[in-house]
Amino acid sequence: MIQTDILIIGAGPVGLFTVFEAGLLKLRCHLIDSLGQPGGQLTEIYPKKPIYDIPGYPTVLAGELVDNLMKQIEPFNPGFTLGEPAAKIEEVGEKMYQVTTVKGTVHQAPVIMIAGGLGVFTPRKPPIPNIDKYEDNGVAYVIRDPEVYRGKDVLLAGGGDSALDWTIFLADVANSVTLVHRRDSFRGALDSVEKVTELAESGKINLVTNAQAVGIIGEEKVEGVTVKHKSGELEDIPVDSFIPLFGLAPKLGPIAEWGLNIHKNAIIVDTKDYSTGIPGIYAIGDINHYEGKLKLILCGFHEGTMAVQSAFSYIYPDKKLSFKYTTVNGVQGLPKEAEAAVV
Amino acid sequence: MIQTDILIIGAGPVGLFTVFEAGLLKLRCHLIDSLGQPGGQLTEIYPKKPIYDIPGYPTVLAGELVDNLMKQIEPFNPGFTLGEPAAKIEEVGEKMYQVTTVKGTVHQAPVIMIAGGLGVFTPRKPPIPNIDKYEDNGVAYVIRDPEVYRGKDVLLAGGGDSALDWTIFLADVANSVTLVHRRDSFRGALDSVEKVTELAESGKINLVTNAQAVGIIGEEKVEGVTVKHKSGELEDIPVDSFIPLFGLAPKLGPIAEWGLNIHKNAIIVDTKDYSTGIPGIYAIGDINHYEGKLKLILCGFHEGTMAVQSAFSYIYPDKKLSFKYTTVNGVQGLPKEAEAAVV
Repeated sequence: MIQTDILIIGAGPVGLFTVFEAGLLKLRCHLIDSLGQPGGQLTEIYPKKPIYDIPGYPTVLAGELVDNLMKQIEPFNPGFTLGEPAAKIEEVGEKMYQVTTVKGTVHQAPVIMIAGGLGVFTPRKPPIPNIDKYEDNGVAYVIRDPEVYRGKDVLLAGGGDSALDWTIFLADVANSVTLVHRRDSFRGALDSVEKVTELAESGKINLVTNAQAVGIIGEEKVEGVTVKHKSGELEDIPVDSFIPLFGLAPKLGPIAEWGLNIHKNAIIVDTKDYSTGIPGIYAIGDINHYEGKLKLILCGFHEGTMAVQSAFSYIYPDKKLSFKYTTVNGVQGLPKEAEAAVV
Repeated sequence: MIQTDILIIGAGPVGLFTVFEAGLLKLRCHLIDSLGQPGGQLTEIYPKKPIYDIPGYPTVLAGELVDNLMKQIEPFNPGFTLGEPAAKIEEVGEKMYQVTTVKGTVHQAPVIMIAGGLGVFTPRKPPIPNIDKYEDNGVAYVIRDPEVYRGKDVLLAGGGDSALDWTIFLADVANSVTLVHRRDSFRGALDSVEKVTELAESGKINLVTNAQAVGIIGEEKVEGVTVKHKSGELEDIPVDSFIPLFGLAPKLGPIAEWGLNIHKNAIIVDTKDYSTGIPGIYAIGDINHYEGKLKLILCGFHEGTMAVQSAFSYIYPDKKLSFKYTTVNGVQGLPKEAEAAVV
């Protein structure tokens, strides 16, 4: 079981910077995220996109901002539980919450800070009614380990960078690769489109455009995919794996069931300290709502900073908080107790 | 007369970044500052000091942060009135304020944003009762143009970097330089201390330690300074100029008389939009006060961002504000109407 002072749900930029402000108050943090690496949307969706509205950065790549934030919080040695959405929260004692992820990892902390951004990024699924049945039995929406597909017959669907890049990559790994796309033009980087076209022309992959995957064949697991051509013609393509790559859409996820006050998929907070109304639970960044709320990273930085001050007083009601400026005192890291848990 | 959409009083980091957020909403800004250059304390007091708590910067020099902010707001072409504290505010029409500086420069805008930091930095004066009489007649607390002292006999007082650096500089410009310091050790950079010691040993300057300036001689203008040695002995030193460099202390200044709600030298605001209660007047950054207020630059960035949204609705009550992300749209500068006024 992982124990910490502040359990931050969401390792996006706001969650990360909150570790810094908590660290200045000698509060230890642990972050949980459904994604496999820190940075939230910035790393997962647009690492190479420039951002223009981070104060003091005329321009910064999203991935670069995350790298800088990781470096900034390094002295405070936070723990991470990555690739596991937080699923359940329970009160297990006075001023003690327990949060369990979908994979069963257990965390305890007196303070929970929800920095969940737009929520858990959930794959957009194709409209195939019984697709859920095949998930983990040949259907995957995210490729975590391409080696799983070595020697297999794989059908990918989609027309974006993700579909193109994985088609190129798997062409050398899988026994056969079929890419199905409902248009005949692609939305991806020009060189990826060219590479896929070349692979198709040289017969290394099977490119099926103006067509959609409409059904899955197989008793227990995927044995083939039914593809509908623009002409209306149906074609069964025998494969072991079906990988629709239609992008990720955010959903509030299990947090919606935590008894918090929700307004349009966001958690209502008091701007005094961004508390949720449930003692010890705060919500910061894009996931919160208040009058005039702007979904900007820079606003989340302020919210996290204010919230950790309040959290300090909540955890230590009798301790006086002496606020020191880093310009005067510099940054002193926290001791590496045991070791920071990284799951 | 200078006309703009938002008149920002204070060109520190928070005032500067507010130009960016206003610019995204196509609102033009003009900044007034008592100091001679933008950046506030960061430029004036600690340009070479590292700051550690700007989100996304593990460390940044204060001066570097100001340079980056200036670059970030460049597309929006703000105007500046520098070296002139704002003195007077009047309502001159419906939704129109007029702000006049101590030097008489007149500005009009529907929205005033006070980003005055800790206030106007006012020189600390030596306790010489009639010193005010000699100001601009041989007494100066800030050296704006060293050429004024060419060929003159100058007496500087102080033991910090400012006193040391100007002593070194004026040694080559003035006819004679005397540096008076009440201790025999200095608070400045080691190499500056060494240089001043060398200049004294070689007779290029007159170094008087363990002594204080206690009186000024002269009818209309400075003709000499009376110095009291630790022994109690008094000495009259004939000079044309007396420059006490005892540092700058912040004062709220004339803004205190503007009828705003003040709490301990800060302006009380509503955290909804950091408005002061007087329509069209906002206060952001270190100069404002609300429950839990933290005097941090990053909080001021958030406050300025929220305030310009509210200012937009105040200026254009019927226009719908369409909020766009810079990641999607980039940053489009404002047209260079007439030219931005720089005073």
